[in-house]
Amino acid sequence: MLSKNTVKFIKSLHQKKYRSESGKFFVEGEKSVLEVLQSDFLVEMLVVTEAFESRHPEILRAFRGQLLTATQGQLEDLGQFQSNDAALAVVEMKNNAPFDPEGESLILALDDVRDPGNLGTIVRIADWYGITKLVFSPQTAEFYNPKVIQSTMGSFTRVQFFYEDLTTVFDRWKLPVYGAFLGGENIHQLQNPTSGVLLMGNESKGISPVLEEKVTQKVTIPGFGKAESLNVAIATAILCDNFKRLMGS
Amino acid sequence: MLSKNTVKFIKSLHQKKYRSESGKFFVEGEKSVLEVLQSDFLVEMLVVTEAFESRHPEILRAFRGQLLTATQGQLEDLGQFQSNDAALAVVEMKNNAPFDPEGESLILALDDVRDPGNLGTIVRIADWYGITKLVFSPQTAEFYNPKVIQSTMGSFTRVQFFYEDLTTVFDRWKLPVYGAFLGGENIHQLQNPTSGVLLMGNESKGISPVLEEKVTQKVTIPGFGKAESLNVAIATAILCDNFKRLMGS
Repeated sequence: MLSKNTVKFIKSLHQKKYRSESGKFFVEGEKSVLEVLQSDFLVEMLVVTEAFESRHPEILRAFRGQLLTATQGQLEDLGQFQSNDAALAVVEMKNNAPFDPEGESLILALDDVRDPGNLGTIVRIADWYGITKLVFSPQTAEFYNPKVIQSTMGSFTRVQFFYEDLTTVFDRWKLPVYGAFLGGENIHQLQNPTSGVLLMGNESKGISPVLEEKVTQKVTIPGFGKAESLNVAIATAILCDNFKRLMGS
Repeated sequence: MLSKNTVKFIKSLHQKKYRSESGKFFVEGEKSVLEVLQSDFLVEMLVVTEAFESRHPEILRAFRGQLLTATQGQLEDLGQFQSNDAALAVVEMKNNAPFDPEGESLILALDDVRDPGNLGTIVRIADWYGITKLVFSPQTAEFYNPKVIQSTMGSFTRVQFFYEDLTTVFDRWKLPVYGAFLGGENIHQLQNPTSGVLLMGNESKGISPVLEEKVTQKVTIPGFGKAESLNVAIATAILCDNFKRLMGS
């Protein structure tokens, strides 16, 4: 049974303000809920349909938080999915340690990527390519935004992220920074890239001038047609694919 | 001045049924409207703000169709953009000739890609890589859907597309078909690909079994992490990038 207060609380988590205040966010849909339950995130509350319950009895028996049942209609009212006949989880945000590049061959840095769908897609791409550390400028979209979580398709459970001033990060760690620009080195022809950071810019403004100064190598995706640009998530995917190929890992 | 009938007509073009009946679709936003005006599409009507008019006097003087002015609020009411202080164009659909692979090194085929945002993004990627012919299965999203047009960022003016039964197309033209699968040949290691077709499958089902039989080479994007899959537009971008690199074009 869902109390009025529970409904009100979960709905408040649609807003960044209340997510920040409570230190909680929500995850919806069967796949993502199952992934968060298997991750090191702490799930505080699960709202599930009877159908979900009968599909996953062991998982629910092992669950130590608050377990509530609801109808599909109630779930859809609580979350943002048009259709959800499975589950919604209320999860505690993580306290990430400060950023440390130790042990990583490729780190992804985002300079003010504002669209939650782009951020989520980029997190999924990072997870595909085994990139586990992402550094975001403070103005980048909020990781715990429901649209970000949804677009990661569960990959949000497998990356570490850090909101930090990127200038400070690059200065402190003296990392080689590969910046995505139009007019840089053709990524198909890049020779022996070293471990470092791939930096992607804002959807409309690209990489800011202050950060451009920190870029040690500009890289470009070769174009063969007339499109002026590529979406930032698309460009991130292509560049990650090339770096992984060139690094032979 | 916008008459009630004009408003009603443009709004009807939000629906596929009325687009098909009238053979018209609409394009909104400054960049896309300017691109369609410079293309070989026939623009029947332009609705513009005074601001757009004063920014592009020559273009409007050269325009031979019906020219109407409107406020920003009226434009936003007519179209799907949350914000549009520029223009909206009503455009005639093209009658494409039947598909012919002549002269193309890489053709893109989509098997039931249903999401308009994915289709539009894929068209933009094709344009970036100079792929000018796209063949869509009949169940693929409609090219003239406003969300498709919007996501192409103007690239819809520079590609040719064909809705055809893909089995028939592959049989008729005896083309090498590279199909995107999990568990195919690592695209980083593919040797000397020939001219042919890159086939991408549906968002959830992938390539249908009937078409799988026509695939001459399965290709896969190597993964290094734990994400189970990539979005179809992302995968298309990565594969196109690899094919263009491998074909040395």
